[in-house]
Amino acid sequence: MHPGLTLKNLYHTKISGTGNAFPSKGKWISNNDIHALIFGDDFQQKMAEKNLDPHYYENELGFKKRFWVHTPGSPIVRDELTSADLMIEAANNAINNSNVSKNEIDFIIAVTITSPRYATSMGAYVAGKLGIQAPAMEMKSGCSSNVFSIVLAAQFIKSGARNVLIVGGETNSKIIQPGTNMLYAGGDAGAAVILSKTNDASKGIAAAYLNTEGSFSGHMGVPGLMPPNDEDLLNKNYFLTYSDTAENFLNQAWSQTPGILYDATGLTATDIDCLIPHQVLKKRTQFISDASGIGLDKTIDILADYANCGSASLLLALHKARETKQLEEDKTAMLVAAGGGVSWGGLIIKT
Amino acid sequence: MHPGLTLKNLYHTKISGTGNAFPSKGKWISNNDIHALIFGDDFQQKMAEKNLDPHYYENELGFKKRFWVHTPGSPIVRDELTSADLMIEAANNAINNSNVSKNEIDFIIAVTITSPRYATSMGAYVAGKLGIQAPAMEMKSGCSSNVFSIVLAAQFIKSGARNVLIVGGETNSKIIQPGTNMLYAGGDAGAAVILSKTNDASKGIAAAYLNTEGSFSGHMGVPGLMPPNDEDLLNKNYFLTYSDTAENFLNQAWSQTPGILYDATGLTATDIDCLIPHQVLKKRTQFISDASGIGLDKTIDILADYANCGSASLLLALHKARETKQLEEDKTAMLVAAGGGVSWGGLIIKT
Repeated sequence: MHPGLTLKNLYHTKISGTGNAFPSKGKWISNNDIHALIFGDDFQQKMAEKNLDPHYYENELGFKKRFWVHTPGSPIVRDELTSADLMIEAANNAINNSNVSKNEIDFIIAVTITSPRYATSMGAYVAGKLGIQAPAMEMKSGCSSNVFSIVLAAQFIKSGARNVLIVGGETNSKIIQPGTNMLYAGGDAGAAVILSKTNDASKGIAAAYLNTEGSFSGHMGVPGLMPPNDEDLLNKNYFLTYSDTAENFLNQAWSQTPGILYDATGLTATDIDCLIPHQVLKKRTQFISDASGIGLDKTIDILADYANCGSASLLLALHKARETKQLEEDKTAMLVAAGGGVSWGGLIIKT
Repeated sequence: MHPGLTLKNLYHTKISGTGNAFPSKGKWISNNDIHALIFGDDFQQKMAEKNLDPHYYENELGFKKRFWVHTPGSPIVRDELTSADLMIEAANNAINNSNVSKNEIDFIIAVTITSPRYATSMGAYVAGKLGIQAPAMEMKSGCSSNVFSIVLAAQFIKSGARNVLIVGGETNSKIIQPGTNMLYAGGDAGAAVILSKTNDASKGIAAAYLNTEGSFSGHMGVPGLMPPNDEDLLNKNYFLTYSDTAENFLNQAWSQTPGILYDATGLTATDIDCLIPHQVLKKRTQFISDASGIGLDKTIDILADYANCGSASLLLALHKARETKQLEEDKTAMLVAAGGGVSWGGLIIKT
């Protein structure tokens, strides 16, 4: 593994608010709903014939339900919710969850791999819809985007910003290949966090670690050309492809991160009150709990409710951690993520 | 105008190398070539009948030629150059132009509004193709992306990165509406810069200013839905739309920036050795020269050769400034950009 970039002492930063978004216009999809999508209404009989266990997806993978704004494989239409809609609702919820007003937000980072528009910066788009007048940009590094974006936000706060809004939105339902097992794994969501300047030098990012191995960039992407063309649309090339090749590498990426963060901070597993991983699969959550030495009882797992919501997942899990009081003030949390690209990393934040 | 974000004192940063890319697989297009595309081979007669001056585009708008990898309006095909190809060549040229080796690069920022893939981070993609093992991300804020990305890079250097590669690539030829005047204005290019940590505290960003007014986000975008659908493809909705509405606002944005940078640094126009604006139109370059008080003789103008290359333009102009020695060591440059979104800003860098 190559060294990557380790950053330290991005203090004077605190979490002011978090929020999520699952608007009522979308729908909650059970595993049975997906069985029916793949096998038809007589899925129980069909799955039995194929020796498939309908409970595998919950018991082994960890998914009970997920939120979708779209039925995978159906045409993309204009009156459906978009990733931007989910961002806007999540951002408003995070603002309401904080004591920060819109005119105190000095920077906006929008994060998505499922933008509803080509060319347009979702930063500017979301800022406009929120009525927030602050510089805004869009960024992506796949499922690790929230680790990267929190580092960006902490750096802007160090440079003088009072409050930075990070907002993620994904509509994976629009890029999931119909008829595949990926239907179980992919969810839609909006999620947001507001990071704020604080005089308290004990709050902030003790250390962060970022890395990328771009040779896996062809894996788990959407192969169709952009801008789009007839041939790729006809050949259904605008769905996410899955690859096993990156799997072993991803395990290395996940397992490498906690040790680097411990080394950088002098902290150990017993110092961490809450482990917040990007949400992929039950076994991956177990793996990072083992690799970090932080028990599953301290690990946030929202897979059952939301499945994998791409670059919104980590912020969703952060929101859950605050809601359930698994992450309160004056605690120490480790965030870890890895995904498509492969980009990965983590950070230790003192709240 | 709202206040935006002003950052100061991002010193200990220098420019180590710049590069551009116009691979021989693409083609250089004259104004006459475009006249012929719009009006046919007898364009002289046709334009005379319509009272159109064939020299208007050079004399008034400032464009003589531009580089295209694609004929606007023709289908997007797999063997054409992409924005990523242009990024990779420009990055290699910038590395060769510097004394920085690939394994000394600690962070990569890829910038584009014309990505060749949906969902994939061009940061990871380009890192993989370059064989650089460093954390990588993609970002965009439209034509101001290079101002935003240089600020991000300077912050990473302040946090500990040795060298940061920023690489922009655009293939505007793939989103220009055929048959329109936008054919004259849009060019393709790759451009890159390497920013490096230096012990010299006099080198770096004296001040930067960033802002966004997102209510214009619908203007000058690509209206087709993403992921793509048959209807929008049939209706040719994956071309860039143009709007006059943002025009007055853009003038305010451009003209506001120099004063804010002067106030933040205590510098005046006479302290600036080189003005490097994003490249839009001859009159816009004149406008920012007037607004900043920096003479046209100190202003980089590459419109004649390259036209508007979107979020690669400012890096192209920076490369040109170094090539022509209009920007040498121990000088002071002002960079200014504004565009679609609307996002805008600028910075004063001491080299």
